[in-house]
Amino acid sequence: MTESIYANYPPSLSPTQQEFLVTTIKDWAIQNGLAVRPPPTYVPEGTDPNRVLATTAPVTLFPSPFPRSCFQEAEALQTAYNRLYATITNDEKWLGKIIEDLIDVDDFVANLWKTHLAVKEEGYVQDLSLGLFRSDYMAHETANNAPELKQVEFNTISSSFGGLSALVRSLHYDLLTSPPGFSLSYPPHPLFESNVPPENTAVETLSGGLAAAHIAYGPSKSSPKLPLAILFIVQDGERNVFDQLALLKRLTDFHKIPVFRVISSKILDQTSIPASDPSRPLVYTPPHSPTTPFEVTTVYLRAYYSPDEYKSSRDWEARTHLERSAAIKCPTVLNQLSGCKKIQQVLAEPSGPDHLSSFLKGTDSSLIERLRKTFAPQYDLSESGQGRDLALNPESALKHVLKPQREGGGNNVYKSEIPGFLKSIPEADWKGWVLMELINPAANAENVALRNDGEVLRGNVISELGVYGTILWDNKGNVLHNDQGGWLLRTKGKEVNEGGVAAGFSSLDSVLLF
Amino acid sequence: MTESIYANYPPSLSPTQQEFLVTTIKDWAIQNGLAVRPPPTYVPEGTDPNRVLATTAPVTLFPSPFPRSCFQEAEALQTAYNRLYATITNDEKWLGKIIEDLIDVDDFVANLWKTHLAVKEEGYVQDLSLGLFRSDYMAHETANNAPELKQVEFNTISSSFGGLSALVRSLHYDLLTSPPGFSLSYPPHPLFESNVPPENTAVETLSGGLAAAHIAYGPSKSSPKLPLAILFIVQDGERNVFDQLALLKRLTDFHKIPVFRVISSKILDQTSIPASDPSRPLVYTPPHSPTTPFEVTTVYLRAYYSPDEYKSSRDWEARTHLERSAAIKCPTVLNQLSGCKKIQQVLAEPSGPDHLSSFLKGTDSSLIERLRKTFAPQYDLSESGQGRDLALNPESALKHVLKPQREGGGNNVYKSEIPGFLKSIPEADWKGWVLMELINPAANAENVALRNDGEVLRGNVISELGVYGTILWDNKGNVLHNDQGGWLLRTKGKEVNEGGVAAGFSSLDSVLLF
Repeated sequence: MTESIYANYPPSLSPTQQEFLVTTIKDWAIQNGLAVRPPPTYVPEGTDPNRVLATTAPVTLFPSPFPRSCFQEAEALQTAYNRLYATITNDEKWLGKIIEDLIDVDDFVANLWKTHLAVKEEGYVQDLSLGLFRSDYMAHETANNAPELKQVEFNTISSSFGGLSALVRSLHYDLLTSPPGFSLSYPPHPLFESNVPPENTAVETLSGGLAAAHIAYGPSKSSPKLPLAILFIVQDGERNVFDQLALLKRLTDFHKIPVFRVISSKILDQTSIPASDPSRPLVYTPPHSPTTPFEVTTVYLRAYYSPDEYKSSRDWEARTHLERSAAIKCPTVLNQLSGCKKIQQVLAEPSGPDHLSSFLKGTDSSLIERLRKTFAPQYDLSESGQGRDLALNPESALKHVLKPQREGGGNNVYKSEIPGFLKSIPEADWKGWVLMELINPAANAENVALRNDGEVLRGNVISELGVYGTILWDNKGNVLHNDQGGWLLRTKGKEVNEGGVAAGFSSLDSVLLF
Repeated sequence: MTESIYANYPPSLSPTQQEFLVTTIKDWAIQNGLAVRPPPTYVPEGTDPNRVLATTAPVTLFPSPFPRSCFQEAEALQTAYNRLYATITNDEKWLGKIIEDLIDVDDFVANLWKTHLAVKEEGYVQDLSLGLFRSDYMAHETANNAPELKQVEFNTISSSFGGLSALVRSLHYDLLTSPPGFSLSYPPHPLFESNVPPENTAVETLSGGLAAAHIAYGPSKSSPKLPLAILFIVQDGERNVFDQLALLKRLTDFHKIPVFRVISSKILDQTSIPASDPSRPLVYTPPHSPTTPFEVTTVYLRAYYSPDEYKSSRDWEARTHLERSAAIKCPTVLNQLSGCKKIQQVLAEPSGPDHLSSFLKGTDSSLIERLRKTFAPQYDLSESGQGRDLALNPESALKHVLKPQREGGGNNVYKSEIPGFLKSIPEADWKGWVLMELINPAANAENVALRNDGEVLRGNVISELGVYGTILWDNKGNVLHNDQGGWLLRTKGKEVNEGGVAAGFSSLDSVLLF
């Protein structure tokens, strides 16, 4: 049944229909802020010296079919996932044991861990942590049964695209229901009949988490007291700025909270912690209004998630500066580390101890089993384990993907290339990699994508569903706020996933449930 | 008092403050659709072959001070102005007498008039006309008294910028009130204290007029009956598309009316009038959905206002085709002609007959006098009139501007250049020009503009206030809908007005009343 859904989708487009859709989407995107700053491949640096140009975010022309059961299961599990990762973050001992094993193969993890240890030695002054999470899944096709929800990764830092994703849902909704009273933007298709993408409350959910932290921070710790604000730490030259601004707008307009964006390289210039104040408030002085300092309740990192962002010791100094402050971190260093693929692998190791049950004590066992069912089998490559054999055997390798355990990676090694790749690197480095059984999304899914350079590409695609959640908890394990809501569908041209062909695409998409 | 308001405005900006403002505005503009497609001077054609790029609309960094009394007077007079131009449009005889005098100096007016006569001969089949008007003013400084509202021109076709203008008001409002609870985006200034730009309901007003016409059209005249829609006739390659889309979105989301955009060169391909149907319904067949024709209730022209848009007889054929159809035209040819500067001049001629009182019969005479007070003295250059002397005398010329009476012009001749210019053209052509006493806006007004190429320019400026109104009336003079609401402030670098220096700017702005 699933196969037949994909076989006839999307409806074919005449050149006139495609031109209409593409024009409508390009205009809709700019009218509604579904935009990015253009990539240098399309607008070379000298062409837009004032960085004033924008272009449509890459989107699919059609929403993609997605099994309703998988979508609902992902939503149903998110608050349990939130709790799982909050609990792991609190278990410094368990986390540390795994992390310390990675230190000699992964500088980035090593430096994050060192940052934690340094702040721990001085003593943390903030008991609360905030998580804005996104759990990413695929709908895994099985031979005879309904598709199964399988987790690709769990993001504990930045968790971006909530802002743009909500807009893509609106775009596809508008196309499906326009003009009013009719439905003529797309050619007719059975899947379109009384069917629109479900609501997408990503912006409300993520902003709600930040607002909850802001309130839980309590009164200013400075003397004299300062006004309170949230800081977004962002990358210099960020092209995905409108995604972030959607959250900022919600915090400003609805929650009435001051929010400032600070480029990561400016943290040490624009924020300070008074040396004399043992409560270590993080003070932000807006450069455009230097006489009005604010105390930062919450630091939301939209930067510092990837190793290449730490260009010098000054970046580590800035990260440590934030970590030791009284601001609530989203995320803390430990929470960021909990998102390592290695952690995911340990949780998902088919033959290991039952970590899930111990972390989710008090949780209904059937819920724990549903969570466990979302894991694809994963292995380390230790001598003692099963993973090494599965990776080196050319036949079993075909069913697997080898992932570096770093976030923001993208350097996966697939199938037949795994044995050769492993032999090409020192065996001592193997523990930096995780072997994961491949998830099989629908083989014949298709869509049409509008790239951010305006090119239209059609082809076989793989879609990944992300579900957003947010949790605020303290270091004793008390949960103050635990919420889920909103989703992301990212759809890639198939060849991209299998080796990064330049002609491919990765687009924001929305779901049509079936 | 006025002078001192302008003398200290806007507050000066440190480089850091300016950078913050410019960055914030550039991002705000794209997030909220305050955008235009980039001009070829900034993005050469080959650079963006897919026309996917957008840039911020040109805006001022600060709202501009504007006298409250003038602003309120402009709003108070708009529905009377609506009625005035509706009544003029209905008086074909009076209008025709003036227009026929221009035929040998103005091909464009001649062709419009011919179009009307051709349709008249066949017989009009639609009694209703819709006007979306914008009356443009300056605040005229006087030696000793309060500033006076003086009309620059009255637009009876397209009346653009309502969509973007409402957004500029929101931009400046957000800057004045951010972050929440503070006001730090601008340096402090007395004018900013508990003062924000007044509401701007341009989108609601203009869309409300279109919706009123759509409803007044009544049921489909086709057999079998067709679904009903509004058409926006637009220019090919229009860069100001997001301004139009703001109205389209309101009509779609709020009024639930199907709206389609048709490029003027495609009118004859995509619309038809069944030859057999004496009621002449205008049938639009969406090229992307050719099996679902619509009957057009209302044609809103965002094209065909300027002579250079009529490239061949096919354009005149298309215009005639619309005019003879049963669709309500916004505007009709006659209503477009009523917006000629020549008409404005006849109304404003200080020594002529009292046209105003005869057109506004039944109107309170004090209201008529207030309307008349907004006229700057205007003259034709006929041998018998006062205008010729005023224009040719180098001294009196200094107080005047010479305007071609065409809409969408921009080829004004100023002050000392007037006598020489007149002598350089055949005297027979003089009647195509109108002499207008110069309006003197505040001499020392300043602002800072962000151009759509991202350049920031500071300098002396002149601001022009436009007030929007809409009226639906029939050829017997019955008014079905008469509304005003929303405004535009356009602010130009002073040198632009005095001869079009390329380094100048023309920006969308908003008002701070004082």
